[in-house]
Amino acid sequence: MSEAGFELHPRLAADTAVVCDLPLSRVLLMDDAAWPWLILVPRRAGMREWLDLARPEQHHLLDEIDHAGRVLQARFKPDKLNIAALGNMVEQLHVHLIARHREDPAWPHPVWGRQPRTPYSQARREALVETLRGSLAGFES
Amino acid sequence: MSEAGFELHPRLAADTAVVCDLPLSRVLLMDDAAWPWLILVPRRAGMREWLDLARPEQHHLLDEIDHAGRVLQARFKPDKLNIAALGNMVEQLHVHLIARHREDPAWPHPVWGRQPRTPYSQARREALVETLRGSLAGFES
Repeated sequence: MSEAGFELHPRLAADTAVVCDLPLSRVLLMDDAAWPWLILVPRRAGMREWLDLARPEQHHLLDEIDHAGRVLQARFKPDKLNIAALGNMVEQLHVHLIARHREDPAWPHPVWGRQPRTPYSQARREALVETLRGSLAGFES
Repeated sequence: MSEAGFELHPRLAADTAVVCDLPLSRVLLMDDAAWPWLILVPRRAGMREWLDLARPEQHHLLDEIDHAGRVLQARFKPDKLNIAALGNMVEQLHVHLIARHREDPAWPHPVWGRQPRTPYSQARREALVETLRGSLAGFES
């Protein structure tokens, strides 16, 4: 399949910064300093459910989640990774990958809807995107 | 790998009914009549993160999620499937698979922590488990 017709959903674009493109997914940093939080969006038009992808691309998305998850583990030493494809509000297929700590503001609850988004400073966001981009560059499927 | 040493976490056992064992995962029905909600638990001791599984078993778990998700789609016609590996409260690796509808009591929010669990009647639970077991029986990896 190709990425013809793919456009990032405007709500995702508004709430995040682009980190990089992996072979299948666009990797976004949620602009919320409360949690180290990546979102992977397969560059495939019209997908809503993980199960909408062809089987090889379902697996490929999981491989990219594994890669990005290990980057978060190495950098942020989370007590738990949360991996979730919800999509009740934004219909475009996207997978949340959130590094959780026991002392974070929502623990042990899920992060969604707990508190208003607290954006990074521009300098902090740019530095974090740069670091993550470097760490994600080594992906091999 | 084998399932030696695997025991279902008591919190999961207390909140669910066992539907069946797929080749890798035990499939549980969350005993909450508010949402059609399955939980898949790979029968592997000591696993906490999806990424803790060896790569072939990560994919196998996703294939079983695909299978169970299609069973939920066929039976409940959800507006959205929620797929999530959170594990902040129960450390044993488990994946939620929840059939969401626009008129359900939490839509468009995630279901966790929205309202107390409302168990099925025994008759309804047994009938639903029986139906789901039949639908899940056709899995081929």
